[in-house]
Amino acid sequence: MDDLAGMGRVTLQRLALELGLSTATVSLALRDSPVVADGTRIRVQEVARERGYVANRGAASLRTARTNIIGVGLHDIINPSFTELLAALEDSLSIAGKTILLGVGQEDVARQTRTLGTLAEYRPDAFVVSPAIDTTVPDLRALAKSGIAVVQVTREVEGSGFDFAGSDDEAGLALAVGHLVELGHRRIALIGGFDSASTGRRRTAGYRAGLAQHGLPFDPTLWIPGRGTREHGRLAVERLLALDAPPTGAVCFNDLCAFGALMGIQAAGLRAGTDFSIVGYDDIGEAALWHPALTTVFTRIPEYGAAAADLVLARIADPTRPVERVVLTPRLVVRASAGPPKPFPQKPLPRP
Amino acid sequence: MDDLAGMGRVTLQRLALELGLSTATVSLALRDSPVVADGTRIRVQEVARERGYVANRGAASLRTARTNIIGVGLHDIINPSFTELLAALEDSLSIAGKTILLGVGQEDVARQTRTLGTLAEYRPDAFVVSPAIDTTVPDLRALAKSGIAVVQVTREVEGSGFDFAGSDDEAGLALAVGHLVELGHRRIALIGGFDSASTGRRRTAGYRAGLAQHGLPFDPTLWIPGRGTREHGRLAVERLLALDAPPTGAVCFNDLCAFGALMGIQAAGLRAGTDFSIVGYDDIGEAALWHPALTTVFTRIPEYGAAAADLVLARIADPTRPVERVVLTPRLVVRASAGPPKPFPQKPLPRP
Repeated sequence: MDDLAGMGRVTLQRLALELGLSTATVSLALRDSPVVADGTRIRVQEVARERGYVANRGAASLRTARTNIIGVGLHDIINPSFTELLAALEDSLSIAGKTILLGVGQEDVARQTRTLGTLAEYRPDAFVVSPAIDTTVPDLRALAKSGIAVVQVTREVEGSGFDFAGSDDEAGLALAVGHLVELGHRRIALIGGFDSASTGRRRTAGYRAGLAQHGLPFDPTLWIPGRGTREHGRLAVERLLALDAPPTGAVCFNDLCAFGALMGIQAAGLRAGTDFSIVGYDDIGEAALWHPALTTVFTRIPEYGAAAADLVLARIADPTRPVERVVLTPRLVVRASAGPPKPFPQKPLPRP
Repeated sequence: MDDLAGMGRVTLQRLALELGLSTATVSLALRDSPVVADGTRIRVQEVARERGYVANRGAASLRTARTNIIGVGLHDIINPSFTELLAALEDSLSIAGKTILLGVGQEDVARQTRTLGTLAEYRPDAFVVSPAIDTTVPDLRALAKSGIAVVQVTREVEGSGFDFAGSDDEAGLALAVGHLVELGHRRIALIGGFDSASTGRRRTAGYRAGLAQHGLPFDPTLWIPGRGTREHGRLAVERLLALDAPPTGAVCFNDLCAFGALMGIQAAGLRAGTDFSIVGYDDIGEAALWHPALTTVFTRIPEYGAAAADLVLARIADPTRPVERVVLTPRLVVRASAGPPKPFPQKPLPRP
């Protein structure tokens, strides 16, 4: 297209000519300068938009090419953890004058590609993406075409070469296992976890690492893989309690499946923290509301959300800066859903 | 701007000249016609975009002016009911070739205006909006500027003159009250409800209407107004149980505050459905997972979401068609969280 790019290009000079204004006035108006009268500024920006004016990226006028839109692509919005993440992103980015438009991937690469591809046509300054499962490096690189910055959050596609902000998922799950071991548990289950995203792989690895750190064997019957949903947590507890040698407690892929596990424990006539122990993962707001309140691992979503926003702004300001990864260390939050183990095997109470 | 609009306008003719193609080829390429070779089509569309080509809205080429973007503005995405709504909208609209971009209002008119205003600059074919509390008719009309269709969903701003799809909120709450009355309850609380949105006003009115239909008085101490959150539900139950003459059951503004109420009942050492009855509102997926499972009112979100999508497509096709309101009749879903009342006053069980 280079041979065509110069022909008929909408330049600052042409806009100025069309508007009957000086190029300086047009330039200032495009930068929202207060020295330009409101009416003039609005008129300039309107005509510039109509003509498809794009500032020369090589020149000092680079800033005027910005749309101040940040495209956010989350693989899931059912999980309130993503709402907390979105709030953190929006708090930081709106201070910098950016507006967030959200494309929802719904854990589907094709849908993610279509939605974010549509957003890309409108030239956001950057994308912040928590990639859907099975997203590949080329999928992410396609978003970065035309110079749009890309920052990964929560999840990352290894080897993509894009900035990332998230939590140390392996350390976090090992922390959860360690807490149950300290309480006296030896048969500890993992509810959730999967191979098709970095979070799934690392949290599963953290579970195994936590067991190994305490000399406990990995027993495949105690891992109920699956997505981090309430439904999965509830079903997983049913399966674990039906085992010949059930565990005395479980760590979870996230808080959502921990809530489902709490429902399942109650439905079985057992009491969480007394008859069966549960440790969640994330510490979203709902965790403290439960009875018993959920013992969980705080992944510091608001902090890594703010870090992702900082990475976005830094990347926009300097596209050539070195790739940066911000990986926060999670913290255990002890509440009431995990306690010392009951003698094995569990005796379900009669159903109410 | 009319005096400028003709000058230097990027016309089909100019694009054709620049590209060295016939106007027919350019026109076909812009319409994604399969008769144009892929390379040519991509080149034409790229140059058209670069030059800011906008098809003449008066002519037969109107269709090419469509962006196939639908801007969706939801006042809240924490509530899974909105995720279910979004899925219904997306299912219907993606079949019609539309892509959804989501602006999140977070119950804040200023934020809603900023986010949807940014979206509006990119000329979506339509907005689907569940307006934030205190949204005014002028707020909504501002979105409809430049001919963008506006359809309201779930909530509506009365007198705005825009299409609407939602549920009959007054009938729905009356249905919930009626169910508790049939079970034998006479002191029935309302958890949640507020004056600053149509849903809040209508559900509160439905509660009063339900009481009146059964000859029961409205007792202001039994209404705990507030937002539809888990936090509010949990706190509201604590307040209700602390009353000198507590109610024997409660209907709720939505399922989320019903879940919070279930947590509060459990924390008080009581059992929902046996010691205290709860009826939710919406029937989101989580309702059936609880133990006891939530008795609730199904507001038919997937159906009115699909209806909203139909209204959008009809409005885009014919901007002058009469305003249409689709109001679905909700249905009671009996599960286990509501039963016959315990003799008043409640005796909390000792805490476990």
